[in-house]
Amino acid sequence: MLVSEALGTAFLLAVVVGSGIMAERLSGGNVALALLANALATGAGLTALILTFGGLSGAHFNPVVTLAEAMEGRMTWRLATAYGVVQICGAFAGVAAAHAMFGLQAFSPSMHVRSGWPQWWSEAVATAGLLLAIRGTSRSQPAATPFAVGAYITAAYWFTASTSFANPAVTFARTLTPTFAGIRPVDAPGFVAAELLGAIAAILMGRWLFVKPFEES
Amino acid sequence: MLVSEALGTAFLLAVVVGSGIMAERLSGGNVALALLANALATGAGLTALILTFGGLSGAHFNPVVTLAEAMEGRMTWRLATAYGVVQICGAFAGVAAAHAMFGLQAFSPSMHVRSGWPQWWSEAVATAGLLLAIRGTSRSQPAATPFAVGAYITAAYWFTASTSFANPAVTFARTLTPTFAGIRPVDAPGFVAAELLGAIAAILMGRWLFVKPFEES
Amino acid sequence: MLVSEALGTAFLLAVVVGSGIMAERLSGGNVALALLANALATGAGLTALILTFGGLSGAHFNPVVTLAEAMEGRMTWRLATAYGVVQICGAFAGVAAAHAMFGLQAFSPSMHVRSGWPQWWSEAVATAGLLLAIRGTSRSQPAATPFAVGAYITAAYWFTASTSFANPAVTFARTLTPTFAGIRPVDAPGFVAAELLGAIAAILMGRWLFVKPFEES
Amino acid sequence: MLVSEALGTAFLLAVVVGSGIMAERLSGGNVALALLANALATGAGLTALILTFGGLSGAHFNPVVTLAEAMEGRMTWRLATAYGVVQICGAFAGVAAAHAMFGLQAFSPSMHVRSGWPQWWSEAVATAGLLLAIRGTSRSQPAATPFAVGAYITAAYWFTASTSFANPAVTFARTLTPTFAGIRPVDAPGFVAAELLGAIAAILMGRWLFVKPFEES
Repeated sequence: MLVSEALGTAFLLAVVVGSGIMAERLSGGNVALALLANALATGAGLTALILTFGGLSGAHFNPVVTLAEAMEGRMTWRLATAYGVVQICGAFAGVAAAHAMFGLQAFSPSMHVRSGWPQWWSEAVATAGLLLAIRGTSRSQPAATPFAVGAYITAAYWFTASTSFANPAVTFARTLTPTFAGIRPVDAPGFVAAELLGAIAAILMGRWLFVKPFEES
Repeated sequence: MLVSEALGTAFLLAVVVGSGIMAERLSGGNVALALLANALATGAGLTALILTFGGLSGAHFNPVVTLAEAMEGRMTWRLATAYGVVQICGAFAGVAAAHAMFGLQAFSPSMHVRSGWPQWWSEAVATAGLLLAIRGTSRSQPAATPFAVGAYITAAYWFTASTSFANPAVTFARTLTPTFAGIRPVDAPGFVAAELLGAIAAILMGRWLFVKPFEES
Repeated sequence: MLVSEALGTAFLLAVVVGSGIMAERLSGGNVALALLANALATGAGLTALILTFGGLSGAHFNPVVTLAEAMEGRMTWRLATAYGVVQICGAFAGVAAAHAMFGLQAFSPSMHVRSGWPQWWSEAVATAGLLLAIRGTSRSQPAATPFAVGAYITAAYWFTASTSFANPAVTFARTLTPTFAGIRPVDAPGFVAAELLGAIAAILMGRWLFVKPFEES
Repeated sequence: MLVSEALGTAFLLAVVVGSGIMAERLSGGNVALALLANALATGAGLTALILTFGGLSGAHFNPVVTLAEAMEGRMTWRLATAYGVVQICGAFAGVAAAHAMFGLQAFSPSMHVRSGWPQWWSEAVATAGLLLAIRGTSRSQPAATPFAVGAYITAAYWFTASTSFANPAVTFARTLTPTFAGIRPVDAPGFVAAELLGAIAAILMGRWLFVKPFEES
């Protein structure tokens, strides 16, 4: 299970960072076109990865998804901690793998400024929406969850000002890519804090929303 | 259920308006590219939202969908009215949420002119098609309905001259965004009237089409 | 059933022609971007329409699909003829509906030259592939047929030199739109002949391929 | 079965090469837009082809997929060899078919340089990911495999520096197209070697990952 989480998160970062590099190189400065390619590649890749690894480890690839599972009592806190560790290690490995594909050195820090209240609010909303999408779809049409998550992230790249990282492991790993998908190391804590707040809000909201009996009000 | 409708409609508007702002900012005046991003984000986001909230409230997010359910006797008129109210409130909240993500003030009126017979005819056709798609797919492959609706709206952004609002709550809320997705407040009544006419036509057509016995003619 | 075929084919043409007009107007001469929007809108719209009307009439929307059903004995020739007639009528109605949405007159002839062996070969291949996709998917994963057809047509807009009409009703109706999706009336017979040849080849191939016992060779 | 593999692989190459030609012609030098069209057409087409032929021959269309099946004992080596031969023949036929659609001669060598460690690493990663996606999805949600593969390839066109051939039959056949999708004949052995190494790694990894009992660690 831990290998599955590590490998899946590594592939996810390779997709996010690799497609960002390709998009930046080919688009000749047209940022809309670059983000469109990046968003479609990420959404499609994420759907494929969840289908691939979902049967093994649940395909969280995301510490806040693991947090939600642990808070709902669906996994032990000990296992959740291990998930978080391998997700973060996998994420950094994925960045290095993508850099190797494009002839860049394994890691170097990003200069991409991503900060301020609009960005933090974006991350909180994006993360809350992601967790609600996972919980709601798992409850009503579980087989469609990989598609719901991929579709959600494709949309979230566009409807949030932060392009929706919505994932602390992804956020940390993207501090070490000096490319399209990067974020300055100094900006990471703000993103992660916003993601955690959005996650907690969504977990509490989901607990109330999806558990209470089905009635008029 | 009402919270689910409000929250889902809020997210829908955040997707529509937020991705419109992002698309407008990044596309440097290339309207085709902006609309492509806006259409794909909306279609993907809508599919994810219907999967998320469908099991709770039916995921109407749209007063004419609720109207159709009430007219077919699948919900009380009292509940339908409550749905309509929370959909409209949720829609305005979603616009404000999107504006906050992009550092804009909560509400300000749109200057985007959308009027005239071609636009009204577009809205009527778009709304009729939406209701037929929901009814037909719910009947033959209910699990595919979220995908049918998302795919329909992606197409409808492009095949109608109005970019297919097809939703009175969405129409009202988009009067207060001075961005890509906006519509002048003075143009909203024409859109809503066209949507209602299209909806009534589709409901009557659907009643005849999907209920009569399966025979040759 | 006949109303369903007529209405579905009308919506299909509205999608094809309408999204072509929108794409041409917004793309400022960038034909790749216009075709991308046109292809994605058509594929998404077609998937939605097949899901909508599939349970009523089979959602052929295409005389060669009806021909294949009749040749395989799954419908009478009398009904097949009626299907063909209403498909063609619906197709013309859809063109007029799209023109009304964009403020154009109901019908006027196309000046878009589409002729020559590469185009005819393209239509034959596109039509053969379409019929094989329908037959193969209906046999192995029937619920996925609407998605297979939508995906196939999205691809076929790009991989054929003719942008893949693959449908005689669509071909006839597109002679009367002076826009992106048009074809000169004088070029229609060549397209339809190529489509019929491709269809016959696919029907015979499919009869042999999908019926013979499952064995090594 | 062999006819199904040959025909499917031929269609796959027609999609890859044909959409590359169309994209190159229409995009006026905008490589990002060309690759986006090529990637979406290939992903959509591949999904449709796997749905079409999956019930007949398993729809491998790829010698390393066949290799994996043989190594896992799910088909005889004799049959696997025959699959490989017809896949390669089908692939060349597909290139010729695409060239005929665009008025080019059947075969002429590519001048497109694709070489070096970043490209080879890309091919190894792309191929490994493809085989893991097939194995993982087949195990957890078999009906979703055609969608997982199509989504994976759409993403892989973007996240790898080589645009992800990930298929020796495709690699050989693309040496004879002087267009967007081509690869110099002299560069093919490096690609195929990388694909084989990636495939072996994925097969061994998959054997360990997907077979060992489901436990904590």
